[in-house]
Amino acid sequence: MQTYPSKLLELAVNELAKLPGIGRKTALRMALHLLKRNLADVEALGTSVIKMRNEIIYCTECRNISDQELCAICVNPKRDRTVVCVVEDIRDVMAIENTGQYNGVYHVLGGIISPMNGIGPNELHIDALTARLGSGVVKEVILALPTTIEGDTTNFYLFRKLSGFNLTLTTIARGISVGDELEHTDEVTLGRSILNRTPYESVLKQK
Amino acid sequence: MQTYPSKLLELAVNELAKLPGIGRKTALRMALHLLKRNLADVEALGTSVIKMRNEIIYCTECRNISDQELCAICVNPKRDRTVVCVVEDIRDVMAIENTGQYNGVYHVLGGIISPMNGIGPNELHIDALTARLGSGVVKEVILALPTTIEGDTTNFYLFRKLSGFNLTLTTIARGISVGDELEHTDEVTLGRSILNRTPYESVLKQK
Repeated sequence: MQTYPSKLLELAVNELAKLPGIGRKTALRMALHLLKRNLADVEALGTSVIKMRNEIIYCTECRNISDQELCAICVNPKRDRTVVCVVEDIRDVMAIENTGQYNGVYHVLGGIISPMNGIGPNELHIDALTARLGSGVVKEVILALPTTIEGDTTNFYLFRKLSGFNLTLTTIARGISVGDELEHTDEVTLGRSILNRTPYESVLKQK
Repeated sequence: MQTYPSKLLELAVNELAKLPGIGRKTALRMALHLLKRNLADVEALGTSVIKMRNEIIYCTECRNISDQELCAICVNPKRDRTVVCVVEDIRDVMAIENTGQYNGVYHVLGGIISPMNGIGPNELHIDALTARLGSGVVKEVILALPTTIEGDTTNFYLFRKLSGFNLTLTTIARGISVGDELEHTDEVTLGRSILNRTPYESVLKQK
């Protein structure tokens, strides 16, 4: 066990080391870096994370992170409310928004079913999703979850849960990445890309 | 430029991304992780770094980080005050202390001479070192700086700066790591290890 020359340093290292992917050595490097910065800079860091945790709001409609009761996407009158894209967390919302290719709205589950990590359907915003679908406005739900076992499990759970609703259930396409060579693509992905082939004419129309 | 669904989140990501080695993607992952933690946990993180930056003291003797005016090493009556080991920063103090092989005291420079990073001798605690040596108590100064160009430059600067004092100036041994094979050691290190060879009898006495 490492001994630190200062309790204050040790405490800060302990807290920094709780961040994901940060070990004690990196935490120490961070702490020593902070000691060289202005007090105002360090206060900005400390207060910004507390303020964020304390004041952030989740959109009552889609559970996206928000500064208001409804997020910027849900209040935007130009978004298509008949299509809901279901994602794991807000990083996925940000990634899809960055493509500029999607004009519907979202539903953030806040995770995916993962028994190993103690996350079951009840830990996710699934009831909030079915509640949204009750009004009949939504015509299509796009499942945009990770292509992992957990993602597939969650997809299947939602497929059964949503079977009673009159809507189209789709998943985002799995296929080879744009720019990738076929010989370097794993066989599962390549197989999917053949099974789920797309009419060439529709690809021609895409930018 | 990434757009964030919340200003509070964006602010926290901006601050976390200023930590060394943390890019914006990792900062976002950290921020989302913090949102899932208890408010008390996040407050512990935020306040611990501010408190550390605000209240930490540097030992007036050796410039080591401390909770008091003099650090635990400098106040320890069992430490040999005639030997001073000069190091770059407190991580080096911790590393040498962990070996359990050193019983002298330290002097923390707070960096090394690096014109590329705008760090000259005046940015380092070199005057504090010469002031310590004035009393004549110190008989040996060990230079334990990194084996880089910057480390060598600082060594040479200190060599000239300390030439007027009546003391032995040594550097820590450069050689092949314990457990390393000769064929995998770079030739500069291997060359040094031959030039600075150690009497076998003295090695026999070491644990």
